[in-house]
Amino acid sequence: MDQKLNLEVFFVSDRTGITAEALGRSLLTQFNKSDRRYTVQPYIDTEKKLSALIQQIKAIKNDGRQIIVFSTLSDKTLRQRLINEDFFVLDLFATCLPPLQITMKQHSSPTIGQTHGMGNQNRYLARMDAVNFTLNVDDGLRTRDYKRADIILAGVSRSGKTPTCLYLAMQFGIRAANYPLVDNDLEKGRLPHALKPWKAKLYGLTIDPDSLQKIRQSRIPDSRYASQKQCRKEIKLLDALYQEENITVVESSSMSVEELATTLMQKAGLRRQF
Amino acid sequence: MDQKLNLEVFFVSDRTGITAEALGRSLLTQFNKSDRRYTVQPYIDTEKKLSALIQQIKAIKNDGRQIIVFSTLSDKTLRQRLINEDFFVLDLFATCLPPLQITMKQHSSPTIGQTHGMGNQNRYLARMDAVNFTLNVDDGLRTRDYKRADIILAGVSRSGKTPTCLYLAMQFGIRAANYPLVDNDLEKGRLPHALKPWKAKLYGLTIDPDSLQKIRQSRIPDSRYASQKQCRKEIKLLDALYQEENITVVESSSMSVEELATTLMQKAGLRRQF
Repeated sequence: MDQKLNLEVFFVSDRTGITAEALGRSLLTQFNKSDRRYTVQPYIDTEKKLSALIQQIKAIKNDGRQIIVFSTLSDKTLRQRLINEDFFVLDLFATCLPPLQITMKQHSSPTIGQTHGMGNQNRYLARMDAVNFTLNVDDGLRTRDYKRADIILAGVSRSGKTPTCLYLAMQFGIRAANYPLVDNDLEKGRLPHALKPWKAKLYGLTIDPDSLQKIRQSRIPDSRYASQKQCRKEIKLLDALYQEENITVVESSSMSVEELATTLMQKAGLRRQF
Repeated sequence: MDQKLNLEVFFVSDRTGITAEALGRSLLTQFNKSDRRYTVQPYIDTEKKLSALIQQIKAIKNDGRQIIVFSTLSDKTLRQRLINEDFFVLDLFATCLPPLQITMKQHSSPTIGQTHGMGNQNRYLARMDAVNFTLNVDDGLRTRDYKRADIILAGVSRSGKTPTCLYLAMQFGIRAANYPLVDNDLEKGRLPHALKPWKAKLYGLTIDPDSLQKIRQSRIPDSRYASQKQCRKEIKLLDALYQEENITVVESSSMSVEELATTLMQKAGLRRQF
């Protein structure tokens, strides 16, 4: 008999579900691939909403699908209710709070978690400030503001500068600027004037020419910009420029935006700002 | 004797540490506030890096601070090494994999988790496409592209439209446009022409006038734009316009960007695109 799994994975939370989803997906990468469907169920914060959800899950189970539920329910009654159901539930609070309670030598207070809550308005303002800063200095704009930047990324077009900067701002409150190195800069083999004073916080992105070509091709198909020849030329000159100017380089080809952002934070010794 | 905790919290991972940090912070919201310091240690993927980190943590412990470590180490040897240390470690893989293994009726393969890894290039391209789209249609730009949008947010200046759209794009691959409703639109009490054809995917952000005033005040202090009078007037007209046009409204005052984004996904019936 075929042991193929027919998995229905639910991420259930009384808040956004972002944490439950991140950990659940990470845990499931440890198992072989199978046919899976993921559903996020945020804001399950009343008995009524939970009951409706449980009915829905039961119906799917009765259709013969295997159920996996990852949950972060901070209300003990709701949590208990879900755990007692006859399908697999891994509630991260139920699993992780008991050992933490012992070490914290105190009992947890049953307030709804605020990981992705507003927290306080200052935190919100700090984050918005970083996002606004980053948008204002995107793609080589307003280089006069570089003195306020926490980090500056250089790189060729489509090497991942903008999304990495936005992620740094949004997730960590880092003011991240980025500067596109174009043919003219690359052929001179020198940093442009706008970047020269900021070498201490300047990092260079590079990417393998084939990946770059693929990304550019999806952007402007069959253009000179997306040609193999152009991509190879730019990266060759770029790597030489970084070496000449002694710039710390991060290779973006095999990294996600999250990985690029956290790698840069680590190299630059930056900490979350909120 | 004062039972004040002097907590040093570490988030340790062989990848970005984003998941360990999110869950760890969420769990700690269940305990009373105390003096805490958080340190993220990503890319701990060798014996050597782990040993150095353990030495560092031991030194801090010897200074009399209480240690809490949240970790996601997918390598069993590294994980075991850390868990055996004489300070508190909650490894999320060690804690959560055993029950999952039982239900999955198979053993986990010891590959490094790829939650925030590049996955495949198509996923990367889909995400970049959403971020680019969102930047291109930010703040009422290029309304001719609205047909390609998954969702469109309307709202007054500084009500959280741009960061929410960027988060939707970055985190979920949603193509999110936003349109600023200005005095002229508000006084007419009607949706501007650019928005009229798209009511099915249009959502209105609103915010309480005091919060708006505080945010604008930090942006352009003591301006007419940031005055209490102006903020109150705009929100009053805005709420009337939403009602008149029958627009689904989300109140952003007490919500974080993550909460706004997930609430909008839910209301619009949108799913993660990668």
